[in-house]
Order: sequence, then structure tokens, then C-alpha cells
Amino acid sequence: MRMQEDEDRSVGVEDNIDKSFLISVPDNSNLVGETKIDTHRTKVQWKRKSVVTLSLTILTSSQAILIVWSKRAGKYEYSVTTANFLVETLKCAISLLALARLWNKQGVTDDNRLTTTLNEVIVYPIPAVLYLIKNLLQYYIFAYVDAPGYQILKNFNIISTGVLYRIILKKRLSEIQWAAFILLTAGCTTAQLNSNSDHVLQTPFQGWVMAIVMALLSGFAGVYTEAIIKKRPSRDINVQNFWLYIFGMGFNAVAILVQDFDAVMNKGFFHGYSFVTVLMIFNHALSGIAVSMVMKYADNIVKVYSTSVAMILTAIVSVFLFGFHLSLAFFLGTIVVSVAIYLHSAGKIQR
Amino acid sequence: MRMQEDEDRSVGVEDNIDKSFLISVPDNSNLVGETKIDTHRTKVQWKRKSVVTLSLTILTSSQAILIVWSKRAGKYEYSVTTANFLVETLKCAISLLALARLWNKQGVTDDNRLTTTLNEVIVYPIPAVLYLIKNLLQYYIFAYVDAPGYQILKNFNIISTGVLYRIILKKRLSEIQWAAFILLTAGCTTAQLNSNSDHVLQTPFQGWVMAIVMALLSGFAGVYTEAIIKKRPSRDINVQNFWLYIFGMGFNAVAILVQDFDAVMNKGFFHGYSFVTVLMIFNHALSGIAVSMVMKYADNIVKVYSTSVAMILTAIVSVFLFGFHLSLAFFLGTIVVSVAIYLHSAGKIQR
Repeated sequence: MRMQEDEDRSVGVEDNIDKSFLISVPDNSNLVGETKIDTHRTKVQWKRKSVVTLSLTILTSSQAILIVWSKRAGKYEYSVTTANFLVETLKCAISLLALARLWNKQGVTDDNRLTTTLNEVIVYPIPAVLYLIKNLLQYYIFAYVDAPGYQILKNFNIISTGVLYRIILKKRLSEIQWAAFILLTAGCTTAQLNSNSDHVLQTPFQGWVMAIVMALLSGFAGVYTEAIIKKRPSRDINVQNFWLYIFGMGFNAVAILVQDFDAVMNKGFFHGYSFVTVLMIFNHALSGIAVSMVMKYADNIVKVYSTSVAMILTAIVSVFLFGFHLSLAFFLGTIVVSVAIYLHSAGKIQR
Repeated sequence: MRMQEDEDRSVGVEDNIDKSFLISVPDNSNLVGETKIDTHRTKVQWKRKSVVTLSLTILTSSQAILIVWSKRAGKYEYSVTTANFLVETLKCAISLLALARLWNKQGVTDDNRLTTTLNEVIVYPIPAVLYLIKNLLQYYIFAYVDAPGYQILKNFNIISTGVLYRIILKKRLSEIQWAAFILLTAGCTTAQLNSNSDHVLQTPFQGWVMAIVMALLSGFAGVYTEAIIKKRPSRDINVQNFWLYIFGMGFNAVAILVQDFDAVMNKGFFHGYSFVTVLMIFNHALSGIAVSMVMKYADNIVKVYSTSVAMILTAIVSVFLFGFHLSLAFFLGTIVVSVAIYLHSAGKIQR
């Protein structure tokens, strides 16, 4: 959590950027002093946004590479539920550590104290519940779609995130940015095309419906998390993370009891854990925190672009690590995704 | 040549649009009358531009469909050189007919008289020579690339046309329009992907160089034709066409003598002609004239967009006519091409 140290605590969240940006328009010479401070603020915010986005991209990409690595090393032998539980526990522990440093430096304030109200905390389990429903549906969709087909259909997530971001957070994208978002979806899908991709066009109606419902659930969970985190801009992100992850621990403890109770009792909690497993748990924990940071200091749109770039990075790195071949479709998809990123920034609404 | 009749002869070419558009900015109340005329002019020009572009799109698309149809009916049994000669002759005849009507209506003027100066006519054979070189290279490139691979590499034409349009005609595209152009290239290529497309990545260096040289030759020929036609804005398009096509006839007559003299002498000029052949000749002649019209009243960029849309239309129509299957790549490419068209118009430079 080194990022946290760079942070200028007097700076608000994204929503406040716009206001301070408006003030910083140099139309009044009396405001020169204030303008300087605002320019500094904007720079700090821009730097922080870039650092969290870059971290998320690198962590997501290395996550995918670790998955390929662990699959090459053999089947998953450890229980996934215990690993998920450990990820949530690690995230909780990291948040608490960051908070301890903060308390040491600044003392306990209204914004960084851990105690909370029911009113604040009641919404925190909702994203976890949404993801749970989505993961349950995931078992059923494979009756209609194969795994590579599901990989293709998952790109609906991009569009659903954009639409729900617009509806729920009421933030506007310019027409050029919408075009960029459509291109991002098409580009990511193109990059993933292979000789079997056309099978997905034979997906039965129920498969399409489930894919769309899952994309909506996943998009809603992401946008809802952003809404929760942004609702209290001055609240410290580590407190918000702590409460998000404590519910995550709870849900995953239940999952161990329901799915893997016997296995854990007979073979032990850490049965089948290897070095790669431990790396994966650390990586998942750090990416989870990076996602929260992106929600706090950037938004879901940035998150979607970041994970798309991670997908492309993963493929390129895999060429060197695992001798993968890149297809023509991958190159074309990468060109489209790159243009989409350019257009997203070129199409920024002028305020 | 019905389009010709709708034409308002007092209206200049594209280059003049910008000037009249500038005048029509309503910042001077004295100019209200003139503004009205200019608005009318702009409408007439917009309508003519749309009609020629739409015609080119439909003709190009039906051309591709006729080719599929004639291939299904069996091998080419007629000599291609005689067919090409007839296409040029037909284009000449149509241009002369249109001119005859014009002379009847308006009398012979400086702009519509057929007689010309060496200075005007000297540049007219150049595009034909460029196409000839490109077609000669086409025989050699197949030593390095197979036919479907060549189809993919031909999309370099799009980029080369854009670059040469910028350099030779010195017309500017906005950054968004350049992005759109890259997307058009990627989208067209994506739409043409099939399970063998990845072979093209194994193209040897000479193949890439030849493909790029051919794209530059073809782009240069297109842009040069536009330069010739636009150099004399007031000159009637049918006179310009007549001189372009008369050289086309000449070059194709030489081709018959060199390639098919014996066959024509022994079997006759029209040996192997069928109903589809005649349809194809008429179609090629009309598309050739449509290309000239697009060069006169629009530009090479519009031509490239038009032929890309024609490619997509052809595939969709082929589903109904020949029971073709559309791939996922085709859908993704079509989405990218559609967004490119939107961005090209959204990214117009404000004058």
C-alpha cells in the first residue's frame, strides 16, 4: 500500500476534481493562488489515477499468466474455496496494516476510524451477493455454451458496465466515447477469435439470455461497488476495503463449509498448495485492492480499459514465456482496442 | 447518366463548397439572399454526392455478386482482354451520349466541348499506366502469397489511399478521421478473416514489399485520377471521362493483340460470352463511371468507404442468394466498419 503514502489527504475524490477544475479556469486574476493549488491537486490526482490503473493492468495480466503457469504445472489440486478465503483474509490484513500506519501518523479521525454505522455498512455485502449469483449461473451456462464460447460472450461485460455506469452513476460519456466503448468490445472479442469461435453463433436462446444476465450482474456489481466507495468521498479507502473484504471472508467461509468441509477436515486446509498457489493468492489479493483503488480514484470505465489492455499484454507476454502464437485476429483486435483507448481520451467531454 | 440532368451547372466542385460554405455563415444580414442560394447549392451538392456514392456502393456490390455467380456457372470461357476492351468502349459511348444530350440542351461551350489541348490531355494516360504496372505485379505476388492471403493484404490499399490523398491532394483529415481510417482497414480485414487467414503472417519479406508497392500504385492511381478530374472544376465530367476511357480502350486493344490475338482470330471476338458476361460488362462500365463521378463530386476517401460498405453488402446478399454463412469475424468487422463510418462523419474538421 505504498500508494497510500503519496496521497495528499486534503484532496477529494473524482467528483471533486470537476469542481476544482472549473475553479481553475484562469478567467479571474484574483484566483491565481488558488489556481496554482488546484493545478497541483489535479496533477496529484492524475498521478494517483495513473499509478492505480497501471498497477491493476500489470496485476491482472500477471494473474492470467500465473493461471496459465499453474495449469501447465498440472491440475488444480488445492481447494479453490480455501484459496478464495485466504485471498479475502489477506486483503483484510493489508487494509488493517495500512490503517495502522495511518493511525500512527495522523491519529484516529472520523474518516479513518474502523467503527461504523449500520447505515454505512448495510450496502457492503451487496456486490458480494451479486457476484455469488453470477458464479452460480456460471455452472448452468456451460449446458449451452462451451468454455471458449463463454470467453467470447463474457465481452458483453464491457457493454453492460458502460450502460449501467451511465444509468446508475448518472455519469455521461460523449458520443465518441460510446463509439470507443463499442470498439473496445469488438476489439477484445476479435483479439480472442480462434478457429472454433464461430460455434458461439450456434448458442441457443437460453445461452444468450444467461450470458446477458451474467454480464448485467457483473456490471451491476462493479458499478455498485463504485457507488458505495464514492458515496463517502472523505472516508479512507482502507476502511471501505476492510468492510468490503470482511463480508468477502464471511461468504467464502460459508462456501468452504458447504463445498469442501470434508476435504478440508480429511486432507487439511493447505492440502495441494504449491509455490504458484501462494503467488496466485498474493496476486489476487493485490489485484482486488487495485480494483478498489481504481473505483475510488478513477471509475469502472477505466477499470474496463485496464483489464482489456491486460488481456493483450498477457497474450504478448505468453509468446515469450510459453511460445504462444499470435493470430492475425489478435493483431487486428489489438489495433481496434488501441484506437478505442485513443478515442476514449480524445472524446473527453469538455467541461 | 440520369444524374447529369439533375445537375446545376452553375455549381462548382467540392473545392468551391468550402468557400460558399464560409460565405453562408450568417454573420452578415446583407447576405441573406446569397445565403439562401448557398444553402440551396450545398443541398444540391450534398444530394449529388449521396447519389453517386450510393450508386457506386450498389454497383460495386452487385459486381462482386456477378463474379460469384459467373464462377458458380463455370470457368471464365471468354477472353478477359476483349471484355475489358468492351467495358472501356461502353464507357466511352455512354460519355458521348451524355455529351450529345448536353450539346442539344446547352449548345457547345468551353466546358463541354470535346476538343482539348495536349496540356490538358497529356496526364490522362497516367492512371491507366499505373494500373497496368500494378496488374503486372499481381502475377508475381502469387509466388509469395496465396489468393485468400492477397485478399487480406489488399486492405493496405485503404491506408495507402488515405496517406497519398493527404500528401498529393494536400487535403486534411482530422485526428478522429485518421482513427476512423485505421479502423476501416482493421474492420474490413477482420470481416474477411477465415480459418486460413493466419497463413498470411508467414508471407515472406518480398511478399510484404510487393503488397505495399501494389497498394501504393493503386492508391496513387486513384488519387492521381482525382487530381486530374478536380484540376479543371468547370470542365464537364463527361469530357473528362471520354479522354480517360479513350486511353483505356487503347491500352486494352494492345492487351488483346499481345495476349489473345490468336484466340480472337480463331474462335472469334465474342467466343464464350454468356448472359452473365454481358451483365458483368455493363456493370463494370457503370461502376467505372460511378468511380469517376465520386472523384469529381466527392473524393477518394468517400470511394474507399463506399467500396468497404459494398464488401459488407455483398456478403449479406450472398447469404440469401448463395446460402453463404456469416462468421463471427464478419459481424465484428462490420461493427468496426460501421463505427468507422460514424467517426469519419463525427470527426469532420469544422471550417
